[in-house]
Amino acid sequence: MPDLSSAGLEPFRALLGEGGLVTDADSLTRYTHDQRALMRGQTPGVLRPRSTGEVQEIVRLAGRLGFGLVPQGGNTGYVGGATPEPGRGQLVVSLERMNRVRDVDATGFTLACDAGTILADAQAAAEARGCLLPLSLGAEGSCRLGGNVGTNAGGLQVLRYGMTRDLVLGLEVVLPDGSLLSDMRTLRKNNIGYDLKQLFIGAEGTLGIVTGVVLKLWPAQTRRATAWMQLAADAPIPEIAALVRRETADLASTFELISASSLALVAEMRGAELGLAAGPGGAVLLELSASSERIPLDDILLGTLEALMEAGHVEDAVLAQSERQRREMWTIRETIPEAEKHAGGSVKLDIAVPTSAVSRFLDRARALVEAEAPGTRLSFYGHVGDGNIHFNLMVPAGSDRLAYTAAVDAGIAHAVYAVAIDLGGSFSAEYGIGRFKRGLLARYGDPARLALIEAVKRAVDPQGLMNAGAMTGSSGA
Amino acid sequence: MPDLSSAGLEPFRALLGEGGLVTDADSLTRYTHDQRALMRGQTPGVLRPRSTGEVQEIVRLAGRLGFGLVPQGGNTGYVGGATPEPGRGQLVVSLERMNRVRDVDATGFTLACDAGTILADAQAAAEARGCLLPLSLGAEGSCRLGGNVGTNAGGLQVLRYGMTRDLVLGLEVVLPDGSLLSDMRTLRKNNIGYDLKQLFIGAEGTLGIVTGVVLKLWPAQTRRATAWMQLAADAPIPEIAALVRRETADLASTFELISASSLALVAEMRGAELGLAAGPGGAVLLELSASSERIPLDDILLGTLEALMEAGHVEDAVLAQSERQRREMWTIRETIPEAEKHAGGSVKLDIAVPTSAVSRFLDRARALVEAEAPGTRLSFYGHVGDGNIHFNLMVPAGSDRLAYTAAVDAGIAHAVYAVAIDLGGSFSAEYGIGRFKRGLLARYGDPARLALIEAVKRAVDPQGLMNAGAMTGSSGA
Repeated sequence: MPDLSSAGLEPFRALLGEGGLVTDADSLTRYTHDQRALMRGQTPGVLRPRSTGEVQEIVRLAGRLGFGLVPQGGNTGYVGGATPEPGRGQLVVSLERMNRVRDVDATGFTLACDAGTILADAQAAAEARGCLLPLSLGAEGSCRLGGNVGTNAGGLQVLRYGMTRDLVLGLEVVLPDGSLLSDMRTLRKNNIGYDLKQLFIGAEGTLGIVTGVVLKLWPAQTRRATAWMQLAADAPIPEIAALVRRETADLASTFELISASSLALVAEMRGAELGLAAGPGGAVLLELSASSERIPLDDILLGTLEALMEAGHVEDAVLAQSERQRREMWTIRETIPEAEKHAGGSVKLDIAVPTSAVSRFLDRARALVEAEAPGTRLSFYGHVGDGNIHFNLMVPAGSDRLAYTAAVDAGIAHAVYAVAIDLGGSFSAEYGIGRFKRGLLARYGDPARLALIEAVKRAVDPQGLMNAGAMTGSSGA
Repeated sequence: MPDLSSAGLEPFRALLGEGGLVTDADSLTRYTHDQRALMRGQTPGVLRPRSTGEVQEIVRLAGRLGFGLVPQGGNTGYVGGATPEPGRGQLVVSLERMNRVRDVDATGFTLACDAGTILADAQAAAEARGCLLPLSLGAEGSCRLGGNVGTNAGGLQVLRYGMTRDLVLGLEVVLPDGSLLSDMRTLRKNNIGYDLKQLFIGAEGTLGIVTGVVLKLWPAQTRRATAWMQLAADAPIPEIAALVRRETADLASTFELISASSLALVAEMRGAELGLAAGPGGAVLLELSASSERIPLDDILLGTLEALMEAGHVEDAVLAQSERQRREMWTIRETIPEAEKHAGGSVKLDIAVPTSAVSRFLDRARALVEAEAPGTRLSFYGHVGDGNIHFNLMVPAGSDRLAYTAAVDAGIAHAVYAVAIDLGGSFSAEYGIGRFKRGLLARYGDPARLALIEAVKRAVDPQGLMNAGAMTGSSGA
């Protein structure tokens, strides 16, 4: 164990100056508690570098002095991946002061920035040049791009634009030995040996510290058409999504399921009826977008809705007639997590199944919960256009949230995961592993895969310096 | 060195049966000579497994007996990546008998197949179910998907659909210790630790043998609109490409530059005038496609062409009025490599630059060749919509092709690469490294990157069993 005293941290203070090292207990809280307050972490100090060079120095110092490091962006993750573990003496490396958009190329459609850039700031920088950065998620006002890269963030437009991995053209990464892997090129094609940057995307900071990111942009979407669809009973969600892809020529950027139960939670929180309702099969928020006036988006959406109604899949639909009405549709969708919190909290199961298995999963998982935990209130919704369902169990009134979470995680969650896995699915679509799902990775990962994860970790971070305790089994520094 | 005699190969014959082991000199040629006849390889035998289990057995046997292995698909690569090296006693593992399309999911838009499936067969299987597999390249009638994965193949529709990496959802890989990494899931989202399959995409068979592939599909494109554009003098290609992306709402699937000199080669081969001409700035083959009748593709294309003409970038344009006319445009584009061969061959430089730097690259590189090797005939063309330029130097009449290739590779090629790299580009956009470009990788790769490539290679293939001599420096078995 390294020297955790003020004297032990002195070399970092000397390196980073005042403001570069945070050690007072009050200020530490926002770095040591995870987003959902499921874990109280502990750290002797938070390091706040201002440059890639300082990050390299930090890594070298930590290696020499025996400090483990936990990289952190906006600290908005759901799995404790950026939370320093009590008893390990890990230092947090916060990228929050490295937040410069380095370049926007509006002809080549690329954006380069520091890893500490807040996602919304990067979106705004792209927009200012007539471009779209399509990565979009609830936390976009506070999450940082390095964290998005480290967790391979998904979000609301994966259907059309892919996960963060699909958006990354270049990375700059400080490796565990302090050397710099600098690949900030804006190239769409570059076959020059192993594409090493892929290693760091979704690695949750266990292989190095991402300090810079180059992302693909698209032409700004100047037109939108948005609908709220009420699904018929037993409406087959995969077939609806497939028909939408086909009929809209893949101009659909969002296809979000909202269950009647999730909708009810939003109404409860507001204390008022909503202007929008679910059908017997739930509701879908569908949005098309395009960069050109030449695309008759409203006609395309209308025609698609007619086809869905003719097929009997959709009972009724509301088309957003104004930006205000569109905003209200989106607000309802985006308010669900807050509404769950307002009702006492939920245990969030972040399920992925093959897109074509979404309805089968929902049928089986709901029946399972009904049978094994009758009376459980569910809230399910999410990015079903790409097979991702947030399948959440509401904490019963009067129950302790943490105790209920532990009980679900130890019990019925596994039965739900088993259904997903039986359908070719996964227990983590977009949240990742972090510290909360390591047990699940060990339980559901196949041995060849787990062995290779450990081999890669050892090869890149032989000292176990980087984010020990997250994802991999290396106990490390 | 292992026992290369017939007796030494007996264990493989016993495992694979007759037809599973090829050793006669005549039959070996098509496995040991690379596509462009630049290298005559050598092997004691070609192994032709019929199942993933047999591949596992081959790898275990080879490890025990000390044979190196060279995985091979359709043997259509341009950099000798699948060519067994003389003097190494490497066995070729041909996947050609593992060519089954395992599954097409027309609702979830995925296709699963053996790695030995010929690309065109996979395309046809998708089409039969109303889907599109967008990977498309000149060799599609003979290249195999395992090779496409191993080389991260690019091709004609990268602009809209990305490289092979962007299409891969799942892989099955036999690792160098004979264990199986089986990840044939069809999930769009699956954040469960390092995305290990990324390691094998573009690894050129140096980390394992890919035996199965899951690819993304799209709805079949039932409508197309195609134009041949004659560019004005000094027409800025990046701005044209950006305008096309914007005005067509990214429905452009192809944006191919064809230089006047490449066009002249095609005319020479045919011995006849072509019906299509280049403008002073060359020609661009532009194609839009859509899966829906609701998209007015012809109007969109016309409007886009009008905007380009108004801006002064395009002098004239021909719209394909029939499938026959469209086919002729495509045939001209696709015939260029053959026309180069017919004229005596070319030295192919596979340049990538940021999309926004394409015109700057062409101006500088052409001036450079004119200054340093006056009289050199150039043929340049390619996927400039994603910054990839095939910049080829024609072998002068009367010169020996191999000697001229060696002279260019040792001389002026580096000056051209220097221009590309100065613009943030690369010496290999889509061909890869293989055996021909190892020197370039060593010369232009930065040290942290090269060290990490070697560390990954050692971690996954400590014995150096897999495709030694390709890409990495490990000398191996």
